[in-house]
Parts: sequence; C-alpha cells; structure tokens
Amino acid sequence: MILDLLKRLSEKTDSKIVFLIFDGLGGLDTGKGTALEVAKTPNLDRLAAEGTVGFADPILPGITPGSGPAHLALFGYNPLQYEIGRGILSALGVGFEIKAGDVAARVNFATIDKNGLVTDRRAGRIPTETCVRLCDKLRQISLEGVEVFVQPEKEHRAAVVFRGQGLSGQVCDTDPQRTGAKPIVPRATTDNPAAIRTAKIVEQFLHRAFEVLKDDHPANAILMRGFDSFEALPTMQEIYKLNPAAIATYPMYKGVARLVGMTVLDAGETPETEFDCLEKHWNEYDFFYVHIKKTDSYGEDGNFEGRVHVLEEVDALVPRLVALKPSTILVTGDHSTPSPMKAHSFHPVPVLIHSPLARRDPAKVFGETACMTGGLGRVPMEYLMSLALAHSGKLQKYGA
Amino acid sequence: MILDLLKRLSEKTDSKIVFLIFDGLGGLDTGKGTALEVAKTPNLDRLAAEGTVGFADPILPGITPGSGPAHLALFGYNPLQYEIGRGILSALGVGFEIKAGDVAARVNFATIDKNGLVTDRRAGRIPTETCVRLCDKLRQISLEGVEVFVQPEKEHRAAVVFRGQGLSGQVCDTDPQRTGAKPIVPRATTDNPAAIRTAKIVEQFLHRAFEVLKDDHPANAILMRGFDSFEALPTMQEIYKLNPAAIATYPMYKGVARLVGMTVLDAGETPETEFDCLEKHWNEYDFFYVHIKKTDSYGEDGNFEGRVHVLEEVDALVPRLVALKPSTILVTGDHSTPSPMKAHSFHPVPVLIHSPLARRDPAKVFGETACMTGGLGRVPMEYLMSLALAHSGKLQKYGA
Repeated sequence: MILDLLKRLSEKTDSKIVFLIFDGLGGLDTGKGTALEVAKTPNLDRLAAEGTVGFADPILPGITPGSGPAHLALFGYNPLQYEIGRGILSALGVGFEIKAGDVAARVNFATIDKNGLVTDRRAGRIPTETCVRLCDKLRQISLEGVEVFVQPEKEHRAAVVFRGQGLSGQVCDTDPQRTGAKPIVPRATTDNPAAIRTAKIVEQFLHRAFEVLKDDHPANAILMRGFDSFEALPTMQEIYKLNPAAIATYPMYKGVARLVGMTVLDAGETPETEFDCLEKHWNEYDFFYVHIKKTDSYGEDGNFEGRVHVLEEVDALVPRLVALKPSTILVTGDHSTPSPMKAHSFHPVPVLIHSPLARRDPAKVFGETACMTGGLGRVPMEYLMSLALAHSGKLQKYGA
Repeated sequence: MILDLLKRLSEKTDSKIVFLIFDGLGGLDTGKGTALEVAKTPNLDRLAAEGTVGFADPILPGITPGSGPAHLALFGYNPLQYEIGRGILSALGVGFEIKAGDVAARVNFATIDKNGLVTDRRAGRIPTETCVRLCDKLRQISLEGVEVFVQPEKEHRAAVVFRGQGLSGQVCDTDPQRTGAKPIVPRATTDNPAAIRTAKIVEQFLHRAFEVLKDDHPANAILMRGFDSFEALPTMQEIYKLNPAAIATYPMYKGVARLVGMTVLDAGETPETEFDCLEKHWNEYDFFYVHIKKTDSYGEDGNFEGRVHVLEEVDALVPRLVALKPSTILVTGDHSTPSPMKAHSFHPVPVLIHSPLARRDPAKVFGETACMTGGLGRVPMEYLMSLALAHSGKLQKYGA
C-alpha cells in the first residue's frame, strides 16, 4: 500500500539520505540505564537535540523479528507482505547472489546407518573445513534442466540453491527431526506442477548426494529443510527513485540489501572502514545504508559493556558523517536486542531523524527514555523510509 | 492478520497473564484531575512505576466503542473484522449461551390497535415482571425445524434466539420505528435461501406471538430488530495456546468471554469476591480476565466520586494479585467513560503493563497525564494481547 503510494509520489532530487543502523539497538534498563543511555554518545545526542526522536515497531507491537523481516521493514517493505524464508536467508548469509525464481534450502550434513536410519542429525558437528570439502563434492552433481549451487556455512550446515525455469519452494523438509528414522522423501506440499517437478529434482539431487557421500562417515547423508523460492522484490530505484548503496560487513545484510536493489560497496571489516567507504563513495549514491553489526552480537552474548563500547566507537565517527552534509540522517536499529535477554526482543526500537525539516522535540539526548518524549511517537518501521524521503524533500504532495 | 501471525508464533509456557479491566477506565480532568488521578491508588502506582504505561485505541482514533467491540479488541480480535451484532449482545447480556449458527434479535413488547397499527412501540414500558411472564407465554410457541429461545430483559425488552440448520441474520427489522404504522413484515435482505427461509420462520413466529399476546394489552404485540447470526470466533486456545478464564459479575461480559473460549468462573458479585475467585482458581488457568464493572456504571451516571471509590476499593485488592506472581499484569479499560460525559467516549484508554520485560518509563503513577509520558505510546487496543504474550515470553520470533 505505502509502496504503491511512494512509487507515485517519489521524485529524484540531489538530496542524500543516510540510514545508520545499529543492529539490535533497543535495550532494557538494568538499573543504570540502557546501553544507549549509558554510552557516552555526544555526537548522536547532538543529532537528537536538533532532530526528532521516537520509536518504531519492526513488525507489529509485541512481535519479535528476525533480521530478514526487520531489514525489509527498515527499507520500507511491509514485512508481513514480503517474506524472505529461511532457505533464502541462509543463501544470502553465505554471500550467494540469489536471483528471482531460485529455490533455496538449508542443509545439515548428517549420519545414517546401514539401514538408512538417521543416527546423528548434525554428523557430530563436523569441522567447517570438512563441510567445505564435502560441499565441493556435492557441487559435482549435475542435474538436467537445473543448476545446483552448494554453499558451506559453519560446521555441519550448508545452503543449496536450485536455479531453473518453473521451480517452486513448496517442498516438504526431508529432515525427520529425530534420530532412528529415515530421511523423509521430498514431496510437493501442494498439487502445483512446479512444486511436483521441484520435489522430483530434489529427490534426484538427494539420491546423487547420498551416493557421493557414502564413504564420508559421519557426514554420509544430508537433510534439507526450509525450502523456499525467491520472488524478486520491487527495487528501491523503482519505488523511491533512489540510487542506493549498502555499507555492511556481514554477508546476510549485504544480501538483503542486494535484494532491494542496493549496490553493495566494499566496506571492510570495522565501523571505521565502513565510514571510510561512505566518504569514498559519497558522490556516487543518494542513499546509504550503513550497518553496524556488533551492537546485536554483544546483545546476544549478554555483553552490556560491549554494546556500550560499540556505540561509543561509532559515535566518535559520526562527525565524519555529519561533515558530508546529508539532508537526512536516520539512526535506528532493525530490532531491539537487550543484553539482559540475550536475544532479539519485541521492544520498539529507538529512532532519530536529523534533518533541517525535522520538528524539534524536548529530547536532548538519544536514548530510550528520551525517545519516549520524542516528536515521532511510535510508528510502524515500514514508514521510516517514507519519513526519510519526506525529510529530504523527495516526496510530492498526495492529491490536490 | 495479527491473529494469523499470533497463531503461528504463540507457544504454551508456564507463565501467567492477568488482564485487570476497569470498564470505562479513561476519564476527563474536570479541574482536579481525572477519577484515576484523584483516586488514591498506591498499588497501581507502584505497578506503573515498575512497568510501561501508555494509551490504547479500542477501535480507531475518534471512534467510541460499545462494550462488545471494545472487549473483542481487548482480547486481540480486530473489532471491525469480527463484529458481534446487537441481537447477539442482547442474548449474551441475559446470560444466554449463544452457539455458532444461532440467529438472535432484540424484541420490544408493543401496543397495537384493532387495525393492527402500532400505538406504543414500548407497550407503556411494562414492568419487568410482566415482561418475564409474557416471555414465558412466548416460549410455548413451537416451530418446525427450529428451536426458539425467548429471554426477558428489562421492562419492555427481550431477546429471541432461533437455533437450527441453515439460518441467516439477513432479515429486516419489523419495528416500523413510528406509531400509526403496521409492524413490518419480516423480509430477507438478500436473495440468499437461508435468509428467505429465516424470514419465513420469523413471520411464523410473529404470527403465533400476536395470537398468544392478543389479550395482553398494552403488550399485545412484539417488534423485532437487530437480527444477526453468530459465527464462531477462533478461540484464545487455538490462537494463543492459552487456557483462559473469565472473572466477571455481569452476564454480557461473561458471554463475550465465553465466545472467545474462556471458562467463566463463579466470581460472586463484588471486586472482593472476584479476587477470591482469582486466588481460588490460580493454578488452573494461565490467562485471567478480571472485569470490574462499576467504574463504567458510575461514569454513565456522571458520578465522579463513585468512580474514585471503585478505583480505590480495587487498588486495595491489587497486592493479592501481585502476590500470585503473574508474569504479566495488564491494567486497562475496554473504553473511556468520562463522568462529565455520562457516556462511553472516544478517548484512548490508559494502559499499564507490568512485567520483568517491561521497558521502564518516566511514569511514576497510573493516570491519564502520566500515561502521556509512557513507554507504550499509543497503540491499537487489538495489540494489547500480543504485547501481553510478548511480555510473558509466549511468542516465538517472526522470520529468521
């Protein structure tokens, strides 16, 4: 709905937008304040004092998002309307360039006994090097009419992508989810001919895979799950008339950015190299997604001090961003990851919008408590993109 | 939409949720504060200080709800998608156990003259005892293929329920809405065969009713309106994996709770007996809806002091609730009933969420003004259920 509207109303201008995304930004107060409140962030605080702050719900109030749907919401795509399944995210996570029509699934290397019964669903958690070597073996499998891509992940995990005409993700898992059972034969979950054809292709692939792996005990089998196909998303170019670039250090975020049409830049490995990248490419794009991963990783580890440290580290770089004079800087997270919970959470995410058009509010710092007094209120995350476009003068009036 | 999502994401856990609902909770400041602000409620204030507060809109901003839709919103059902018509609410209000497929209508006893023209649409507001006696007479009517239930309400009002296969609520009112006119012949409002059949059944019922009542002047006729059928709602068990119980003193609230799958407990007649009931059944359920009626009744009467008194009376009981250690206590109303307005109003309703996972906010008391600084912001009431589930750790992550 909002995308149809934005497609009508958006126009190309010279103004530039930067989304500075701290993964897992929202936190909980454990007595002394949240990580964002405890961190010394004078530069973000200045932006908050000059701008508008508030909260965003990635999906809906109370719903904890995974990174995929949360990022779609950030980029303005309703995360319930546009779903990215597990198989696709796995493929993106290993840096695979997924294309429309591809069908992806997650793979576990597993152990089967002489009777074909699964004895270990994770093949004793084989080392990643073994996984890489076995994926190379699986790549030798060629099937008629489809390309097969096999990508190692960590330990016993890998991703498989099938590419060809008329494939469907509506195929059941082959993982029996317990030991002592045979792997499940892949079946179409609908009577759609594409699903039936895909199930047959998967069955052929598995047949060949079991042959190829038969002497590789404990990894003498594979189990597949989370089949899904990828339908192309409308791009940010089409909808927003933007020329967008992604600056991120982790494959999955680069992958999601590519799905919505961003050019993925070489961002190095640290926030500092990410800001170097931003400066280097400043003149080439008009939208930059800058992703800071570690706020989430430390949140998942329950490492409050780690979160504080990353926030301070990035805050010190913020003057370099301000010096580039973007028309709108939007700072937020894709979701909350409070360190006391050691997990993604349902809490709405703090948002800061800095722009000459931002309506000033009483908030003088960037933190969860200050955001409660903010001028933005609490909005669905999918509207942050329209707000950023509006604050950069990139949207025409609706109606006369 | 949210219900489909919650059905996917909810999971059964040991944690317990209590909804403490003050009917008509929101008020207006008449100089000294609202009733909730004037009432001394140290226990609710403590919960507010430890929790998150804010506002909920039962339907949409600006829309004043009836009790039916407001309660559906409280329980997480979009009140515009799931409608409970007047006939059904009337039947629930007299304690009738409505079933899926039933068609209910409201009845007025009325006076007609020799020519069959309505001379009084309320039969001189006959006493309730007369109404009860006449309803007994109407119960003698038996029709082929349907059961008919007749339930007295107050004075000239009653409810009729038709139960049988293939009935429809698409039947026009028989009340001409003015005197000097004949009662309208019931007609189907669509060409749906079930509606045509139902209209014929209603016509037979009216024919017999007018015979039975012909000597009961001034109540020698009945007028029917608000026909509607009841389609079963998805239950809280199905959607939320909860085992829910209702603690309420008025039939209509018990009825609505039953519609969404709650077990209705014997709650007595006062807030104190309701809290006794809560303690007695604490181990048997994981969701409790505790309904306090009098805040609304006093609001409708314009009795500000009465509202203050009820709030203080219940606040004194709150430590008994806290002592049970629910994982989430959610305190709110179904709608606002400001005593200066003597009616339900459109104002958003104060909400308090108390849970170890609640994000603390600056609010130190529970009141309308404090709620304006709350961490919850302003949310649609239909999301209070997802928020409560989230605060009790009962929802899985959406997407990966």
